Amino acid sequence: MDAYAPTPADKFTFGLWTVGWQASDPFGTATRAPLDPVESVHRLAELGAYGVTFHDDDLLATEPDRDKAVQKFKDALAATGLQVPMATTNLFTHPVFKDGGLTSNDRDVRRFALAKVRRNLDLAAELGARTYVVWGGREGAESDAAKDVRAALDRYKEGLDLLAEYVVEKRYDIRFALEPKPNEPRGDILLPTIGHALAFISQLARPSMFGLNPEVGHEQMAGLNMVHGVAQALWQGKLFHIDLNGQHGPKYDQDLIFGHGDLTSAFFLVDLLEHGGYDGPRHFDYKPLRTEDSSDVWESAAANMRTYLILRAKAQAFREDREVAEALAASRVPDLATPTLAPGETLDSLLTDDFDPAAAAARGYHFTRLNQLALEHLLGIR
Amino acid sequence: MDAYAPTPADKFTFGLWTVGWQASDPFGTATRAPLDPVESVHRLAELGAYGVTFHDDDLLATEPDRDKAVQKFKDALAATGLQVPMATTNLFTHPVFKDGGLTSNDRDVRRFALAKVRRNLDLAAELGARTYVVWGGREGAESDAAKDVRAALDRYKEGLDLLAEYVVEKRYDIRFALEPKPNEPRGDILLPTIGHALAFISQLARPSMFGLNPEVGHEQMAGLNMVHGVAQALWQGKLFHIDLNGQHGPKYDQDLIFGHGDLTSAFFLVDLLEHGGYDGPRHFDYKPLRTEDSSDVWESAAANMRTYLILRAKAQAFREDREVAEALAASRVPDLATPTLAPGETLDSLLTDDFDPAAAAARGYHFTRLNQLALEHLLGIR
Amino acid sequence: MDAYAPTPADKFTFGLWTVGWQASDPFGTATRAPLDPVESVHRLAELGAYGVTFHDDDLLATEPDRDKAVQKFKDALAATGLQVPMATTNLFTHPVFKDGGLTSNDRDVRRFALAKVRRNLDLAAELGARTYVVWGGREGAESDAAKDVRAALDRYKEGLDLLAEYVVEKRYDIRFALEPKPNEPRGDILLPTIGHALAFISQLARPSMFGLNPEVGHEQMAGLNMVHGVAQALWQGKLFHIDLNGQHGPKYDQDLIFGHGDLTSAFFLVDLLEHGGYDGPRHFDYKPLRTEDSSDVWESAAANMRTYLILRAKAQAFREDREVAEALAASRVPDLATPTLAPGETLDSLLTDDFDPAAAAARGYHFTRLNQLALEHLLGIR
Amino acid sequence: MDAYAPTPADKFTFGLWTVGWQASDPFGTATRAPLDPVESVHRLAELGAYGVTFHDDDLLATEPDRDKAVQKFKDALAATGLQVPMATTNLFTHPVFKDGGLTSNDRDVRRFALAKVRRNLDLAAELGARTYVVWGGREGAESDAAKDVRAALDRYKEGLDLLAEYVVEKRYDIRFALEPKPNEPRGDILLPTIGHALAFISQLARPSMFGLNPEVGHEQMAGLNMVHGVAQALWQGKLFHIDLNGQHGPKYDQDLIFGHGDLTSAFFLVDLLEHGGYDGPRHFDYKPLRTEDSSDVWESAAANMRTYLILRAKAQAFREDREVAEALAASRVPDLATPTLAPGETLDSLLTDDFDPAAAAARGYHFTRLNQLALEHLLGIR
Repeated sequence: MDAYAPTPADKFTFGLWTVGWQASDPFGTATRAPLDPVESVHRLAELGAYGVTFHDDDLLATEPDRDKAVQKFKDALAATGLQVPMATTNLFTHPVFKDGGLTSNDRDVRRFALAKVRRNLDLAAELGARTYVVWGGREGAESDAAKDVRAALDRYKEGLDLLAEYVVEKRYDIRFALEPKPNEPRGDILLPTIGHALAFISQLARPSMFGLNPEVGHEQMAGLNMVHGVAQALWQGKLFHIDLNGQHGPKYDQDLIFGHGDLTSAFFLVDLLEHGGYDGPRHFDYKPLRTEDSSDVWESAAANMRTYLILRAKAQAFREDREVAEALAASRVPDLATPTLAPGETLDSLLTDDFDPAAAAARGYHFTRLNQLALEHLLGIR
Repeated sequence: MDAYAPTPADKFTFGLWTVGWQASDPFGTATRAPLDPVESVHRLAELGAYGVTFHDDDLLATEPDRDKAVQKFKDALAATGLQVPMATTNLFTHPVFKDGGLTSNDRDVRRFALAKVRRNLDLAAELGARTYVVWGGREGAESDAAKDVRAALDRYKEGLDLLAEYVVEKRYDIRFALEPKPNEPRGDILLPTIGHALAFISQLARPSMFGLNPEVGHEQMAGLNMVHGVAQALWQGKLFHIDLNGQHGPKYDQDLIFGHGDLTSAFFLVDLLEHGGYDGPRHFDYKPLRTEDSSDVWESAAANMRTYLILRAKAQAFREDREVAEALAASRVPDLATPTLAPGETLDSLLTDDFDPAAAAARGYHFTRLNQLALEHLLGIR
Repeated sequence: MDAYAPTPADKFTFGLWTVGWQASDPFGTATRAPLDPVESVHRLAELGAYGVTFHDDDLLATEPDRDKAVQKFKDALAATGLQVPMATTNLFTHPVFKDGGLTSNDRDVRRFALAKVRRNLDLAAELGARTYVVWGGREGAESDAAKDVRAALDRYKEGLDLLAEYVVEKRYDIRFALEPKPNEPRGDILLPTIGHALAFISQLARPSMFGLNPEVGHEQMAGLNMVHGVAQALWQGKLFHIDLNGQHGPKYDQDLIFGHGDLTSAFFLVDLLEHGGYDGPRHFDYKPLRTEDSSDVWESAAANMRTYLILRAKAQAFREDREVAEALAASRVPDLATPTLAPGETLDSLLTDDFDPAAAAARGYHFTRLNQLALEHLLGIR
Repeated sequence: MDAYAPTPADKFTFGLWTVGWQASDPFGTATRAPLDPVESVHRLAELGAYGVTFHDDDLLATEPDRDKAVQKFKDALAATGLQVPMATTNLFTHPVFKDGGLTSNDRDVRRFALAKVRRNLDLAAELGARTYVVWGGREGAESDAAKDVRAALDRYKEGLDLLAEYVVEKRYDIRFALEPKPNEPRGDILLPTIGHALAFISQLARPSMFGLNPEVGHEQMAGLNMVHGVAQALWQGKLFHIDLNGQHGPKYDQDLIFGHGDLTSAFFLVDLLEHGGYDGPRHFDYKPLRTEDSSDVWESAAANMRTYLILRAKAQAFREDREVAEALAASRVPDLATPTLAPGETLDSLLTDDFDPAAAAARGYHFTRLNQLALEHLLGIR
């Protein structure tokens, strides 16, 4: 059991809003009392977490005075040693953001949103956060008549460019991580997938200051392969942060415990994070089920970390298994790293290839065996 | 009725593989005979199309000799005046491409694929095509163990960079248009959405030579909003070409007639294309239903164009309706074009805003009326 | 315009919870004030509605005293002439129902739920409701370990059998209509589709007292064809009631205005309701967008009815169009009403059929033309 | 390893069309040669299978003479001891069925389809099959105008009633198992889910002769919970047969190896089959990947059985684990088997319940711990 006990070295982090979720949903009222952020900090530290993250409004869950709330939070961090590697702004709960924040049709709202992010950037810097997440959950529309998408992207860019400039001016050591989501709470959200957000970043004034915070369930709500998406983000040098949780395909945003959705995908995701060069926090953005009480909440927080560690051990065993290495070779997986043209070759060189399509077509790729080996590692049979 | 009769000025184009589809599917054999490309060219010209497009292999549908097939095709083009604005390569039908073309784990296959594209680029240039579509339908995997996605993206980039260089060397007036698709025939396809493909382009050696060929049904297979996606592509200057058809949400690739899927989305898409600055071909990439005979095939080709023209007229009426203009203003849609900061302002300027969140939150956006007006234009009630 | 002005003869009804929705969602708080049911009754009557429906708790929106609330509601009904053709029980909002009502793992909760339905059945009867809807939105689970589905169906049956017996004993003129939904707020809800609910009814003690209340968006959340589902319900004599609204495929439950989702499906649904023998209320179960203010709420209520009437007129024109009749005949649609065997024939009779599969296979079904005709009626072009 | 070696006692069966699939798909031609059914029988027997199943046309894969083909097949069965517990008819591949078999708009086709099933029923009986599967994959439509669904259900019922009568007359020991599927190859297929098919059966002349053959991937294509669906089928006494395979949510029909899709759902499905009273064949209806060669085909067949046996062992351990029993009790899962009313009670008895909703609402269900325990059994950690 000890093998799967988390320590701060594992860099597990949680949003205050996860364990603190009171469990109201579109058809039901809250089933749990508000949770004092101070308690969350202490509990998460006891469970072995490395850090906590927050929206500006999260700090006010039980203490309405902002200054007092911040001070209490800092004291708890100091007492526990918990880090704040990431912070973010809530631009979605208050009715004023009902048509979005940075891309609201209402210019006054856009200005208010910018000021709200600006203010919390100061706090983020003060608390040592180096990643600032931007989830534009209300930036979107239910009708294609209601939003000029190109103008919205202009405004999105304007806002983010200004915020990046602010960070530079203030000399904050902060980078931004955009979090894509296809829909909910809006019918369609702008920058709906990892791809759209990466593409958008290429148009910003300071693209190097922007990367992604992809969330497992968000990609899976569009039926997309999270592992492929994260791999592309890594390939583009843009995996700044990650939200781990679980989801069962295209439906409402479930925010299940990591591994409690698509388990096989979770295994391959851990394999990619551990062997793909990502060294940032493993951040859980999940919701304890509405059926659960306060004790279950901490059980669920622990389950996220424990499942990750179990999968990490399996991914390591998978990569070290000689039979797996043989199967990968038989499937020519490593050959894909070899450039298609040899040094010095040009497209003309291909004209002299002596290639028999029928013979090549007859060769099997043996992916069956490879996938079964992965599965058996996952199942603990090997 | 005449109001909806297409002419070449409307720039409607069809893939030879659309009307020529023999209607075999995963559970059934062909229901229609092969169609001579020459007949397709003549028929499409009679129906009022502007051009045809093709995969290299399409030309060989009824004439196995490539040179003869090309000559016959050219003769038909000359006789009818039909243009070839776009061409593409088939890297998916032959078993040799079963693990992909440019990203196959088998390096020999990758080389063969590059040579195949190269050869057809010459033909494309000869026929005057200025857009070369790349649909990597087999570039993908069914198991996350079977494909090193980052290596695959390296090879994809290598291949496309080489092909772009070839086009430059040959001084061809050709740009590439990548066509995203989330899945089918592979479990997960690389560059699954408009966003992922746009993001990938930013990493290429000559990004200005690459844009997109988004397909209505492909985005909708991921539950994504096609109009939003096309708007982002336009915003990034990357809408090089477009595939119009119909789809009913996440399921197999239906390739229905344009408008025979999500009609409301088709209306807003036409509105965007007509009023958003796109002036390329309106290309139909659909499949006549398997239940239909040869005469129905031409009926279906005509239906695509007629539906587009109907929607075009409605979009124009929508934009010219004074009540619509008032509703757009009441919803503050045009206000989104106004920068959030006035000239000379900085983020600091926001601190003096006298903003009452509660009052702003109480203002309605009146999107209901706006969407209903759009709907009534679509329904022909206004 | 007058052609689409609703009157009570059109039998349009609304849930109090629709116009009264305060627009809190999983990521945001309410944007509208509570609405007095009395105001809703008066407003809906002015707009031309036929009736209102309610959950027991809806009546208490602005008046906490149940008796007073009921009396005020009755007075408003009397003043306006609005009917209450349907009522239902809220077994989902209160935290006590977090694991369901009739199938909660907690037997005490099941008993409480039964008592709550029983009490409201009395009120429903008193108000003249003849249909009692049962939406078991919390009857479900997020983990397959958490619910013994067969035991749950036993309890569901037990509860409904008891309630039916109660209705019989009290001699209430009430039938039950089950409302299926695939998920949200639970990960998976029991009786997820029209089919599952119909199948379940066949196992009840008094199946004739049970039918369905299918909802457009709920079927479409599973990617299913609502028109097909309603047709099967009608075929089994089980369409007791219907919830009309809009949805854009598999995602969170959108509850859009009728016609503001899949418009073509809405057209065919109206065609089926109007020409398929359904004579119950046309009940709208939608949510005014969260972006909207109080005035927009009534605009949205009106839009539901107006869109239905527009589609009704189009469906009638479609059925009366001689060219459509010809196209239906050419597609052999009416032939499906002819039994496959003639009177007196047995399977043995088929052995002497002189049938040429190849010739039959070559015949086209001409569905393209038929669908295009339908579309052009919908678009107002014919 | 031996622990997971299949034997005929495990009742594993395969369709001839699974291992024999030549791997042509909508975008590619066959990658494997036709497979002689005789070879399949021998190979499957060697691998430890219990039986094989077939469509009438499958027998003709390499031997066009039907009588010879049947005799060779019988000889192989005799030589190996393999059983034929199920047979079915191909009413979808030939172009004549392009609008369906039993519900084609073309009455001549309907008659031909009936005769084809009748003929193969004789062979099925001769080979000892006791289950006859009916998958109406072509019974459906792409346009709601093209099919009168109620007439189609009339014809479906007529056909199945006639076939049941035929079986009774011939005194065959055969029951029918309907196989639902939501779409593909038709845009919408009739009887799209387990629920719709169960509901339809209740309307047949001899409902006791009809049950279901649900397929894992088909339910998951609609985003539905396969375990819930199978539980309802079992609850209604209608699980006559089952098709095991894998799928990744709503997309084209993947027919992956069992366990290679949603692994957690596969675990709970095996748990239900093993502990829920099902004693029929465990039938694999999958497709070896198109990338694979002939040797991989047999590797894939073996992987299906092996994965099932691994999951079976885990399900047994899960049920025997005392901590799991405690967790189930803590979650009150077994309590759901207790009737809501005690013997002698009526709804009136509930009026005296002393129930405190707030107190009950505060109790947690502890589903987190339960699901984590299941997961850890699946992962081999316990």
